[in-house]
Amino acid sequence: MDSTTISLATTEDVAIVDLTERITEWIAGRGEGLCHVFVPHATAGVALMEVGAGSERDAATMLQTLLPRDGRWVHAHGSPGHGADHLLPLLVAPSLSIPVLEGRLALGTWQSVVLVDTNRDNADRRVRLSFLAG
Amino acid sequence: MDSTTISLATTEDVAIVDLTERITEWIAGRGEGLCHVFVPHATAGVALMEVGAGSERDAATMLQTLLPRDGRWVHAHGSPGHGADHLLPLLVAPSLSIPVLEGRLALGTWQSVVLVDTNRDNADRRVRLSFLAG
Amino acid sequence: MDSTTISLATTEDVAIVDLTERITEWIAGRGEGLCHVFVPHATAGVALMEVGAGSERDAATMLQTLLPRDGRWVHAHGSPGHGADHLLPLLVAPSLSIPVLEGRLALGTWQSVVLVDTNRDNADRRVRLSFLAG
Repeated sequence: MDSTTISLATTEDVAIVDLTERITEWIAGRGEGLCHVFVPHATAGVALMEVGAGSERDAATMLQTLLPRDGRWVHAHGSPGHGADHLLPLLVAPSLSIPVLEGRLALGTWQSVVLVDTNRDNADRRVRLSFLAG
Repeated sequence: MDSTTISLATTEDVAIVDLTERITEWIAGRGEGLCHVFVPHATAGVALMEVGAGSERDAATMLQTLLPRDGRWVHAHGSPGHGADHLLPLLVAPSLSIPVLEGRLALGTWQSVVLVDTNRDNADRRVRLSFLAG
Repeated sequence: MDSTTISLATTEDVAIVDLTERITEWIAGRGEGLCHVFVPHATAGVALMEVGAGSERDAATMLQTLLPRDGRWVHAHGSPGHGADHLLPLLVAPSLSIPVLEGRLALGTWQSVVLVDTNRDNADRRVRLSFLAG
C-alpha cells in the first residue's frame, strides 16, 4: 500500500475544503484499486459532495442546526460550543474509499472530495491518502 | 480489482432501494476480500439497514426532519427544497465496504444494502460495485 | 484477507464502547494495509471519536435529539422508541476503514475506534475486523 499525507489550513469557521485535485494528482497513473481518504483528527470528516453551487454554505447551515454550538455539551474545552466539533465525525466520518479505474478516481460528474471541519481552534489539518491496488 | 456498475430507477420521493440480492449475485464465488459499494451521484448515499419492517418509511421521516425541503438552502436548482438533497451524502455517505467471506457478503441477519436517494429530479441511478481480493 | 470477530456486551442505554485496544492488538505486526471494522447489526454503527473527555455523553445527547425515542416510528417492535435504533446506521455507518502502517493503526492523537449502539433490547454485540494487506 502506498500512503502519503497532505497538509492544509482551514480558514473558515465551517471549512469545506476541496481535495479533489490533489487526490487526482496523487492517484494519476496508478491503475485499478481503492483510494482511501482518512482524516487523523477528532473534529473533522471527509465527504463527497457538489461544490461551487452553494452547498458548502448549506452544509455549514445543516451542521450548525444539527450540532448547535451552545452550552449543552459536557465536553467544554476550547472555544464556546467546541463540544459540537467532537460530534462531527459521528455524522461525517473521517474515512472514505473511492474506486480508482485506469489511474483515475471514478467519481460522478458532480462529486468532489472535501474535508469538513468545524473546529475553530486548530487550522492545521492533515489528510492521509492511501492506495490499495486491486 | 474487478468492478462493475448496476443501473436502477428510483420511483419514490425518498427512495430506499434494496441492492442486496444484486450485490450477492455479483459477489458469489469470489472468495475472501472487501466488496466496495459506491454511488457516483451527489444526492444519494448507500446504507446498511433492516428492510421490510417499516424502517424505510422511518428513514424518509428522519431525512425530511433533518434535511427540510424548504427555502433555507442557498443551492436552489431543481424542485423546491432540492438543496437538501445535496446534503444527504454528508449524512449518508455514498461509499461503503462489506467483508466477503467464502464468496458471500458477511452481513448480519437484519442488514440489507440500500441506496438512499431523495432526489426527485433524476430517477436514473447507477451504483458501482468493486471487489478487492485479500 | 485475515478476518476475525470480537464479542462484547453493551450495558448502557447509549453504548459507546472503545474498541481501540483490541483492534490495536489484533493488527500488531501486520505491516501495511487497511483495517476494516464492520458491525453486523442493524442498530449499531462504528465511529472514530475522542473518548474520556465527555464526548461519549454528548454523543448520547446528540443521538437522542436527532433520533427521538417516541411514537413517530413505523417500526414499533421492542422497547418504546426502538424504531429510532434502526435509523442509527444511516447516520453512523457500521463500516469503517483505517490505514495500517508498520503494523499500527494510523489514528490521530485523539481518535479512538468506538462501537455506537442505542439498542436496549440486545446487549450481545459482535464486531468483525478484517485486514487487507497492501
